[in-house]
Amino acid sequence: MTNDCIFCRIVSGDVPADVVLETDHIVAFRDLSPQAPVHVLVIPREHVEAVGTLGSEHHDLAGHLLLAAREVAEREEVHQSGFRVVANTGREGGQSVDHLHLHVLGGRPLSWPPG
Amino acid sequence: MTNDCIFCRIVSGDVPADVVLETDHIVAFRDLSPQAPVHVLVIPREHVEAVGTLGSEHHDLAGHLLLAAREVAEREEVHQSGFRVVANTGREGGQSVDHLHLHVLGGRPLSWPPG
Repeated sequence: MTNDCIFCRIVSGDVPADVVLETDHIVAFRDLSPQAPVHVLVIPREHVEAVGTLGSEHHDLAGHLLLAAREVAEREEVHQSGFRVVANTGREGGQSVDHLHLHVLGGRPLSWPPG
Repeated sequence: MTNDCIFCRIVSGDVPADVVLETDHIVAFRDLSPQAPVHVLVIPREHVEAVGTLGSEHHDLAGHLLLAAREVAEREEVHQSGFRVVANTGREGGQSVDHLHLHVLGGRPLSWPPG
């Protein structure tokens, strides 16, 4: 955990968030600038910067993240209608917070290309 | 494997693809309708329909997929400039082939929202 990482502070409870799912490995909460009726972020409790910095030691964590995205879609009742999972790395990817997060978007048709 | 799944047929070699990475668990190949200078699909060898149908038995596979996306970004030299990983489930998610695939896009700035 780093004190200046806003997502680490959400994990620790220092910063409030509208949490929809918590496990031993991840926290999922609503995006403050939602781009769809359902827009939830899934983050690991452990501070990992991005998909681009995942190493083999994060194999287990990566599995937890993707399965949690599915769980969030189910809880938010978009698993039947459909949803999109998005992860941004770096400048051209559009990453805004340097703590790995999966966006789970649904509740409206998502267009193509994805940005 | 199902005979009528185009991605299973790519895995088996029945259908050609521009493969960029192969492991025991995944195959990664270029999208036929690229939406960015780098646009690669990462699929599991095992037929799994979508993120929306992942179960706890797919934990390991999910980890392999996300780590392979990072590996692809590195091989395609977009891991420094940035990239986006996208997975569509179902109709509103924009899923076009019912075999789980992660899109890895890079080589240009990706805009927001992601569709």
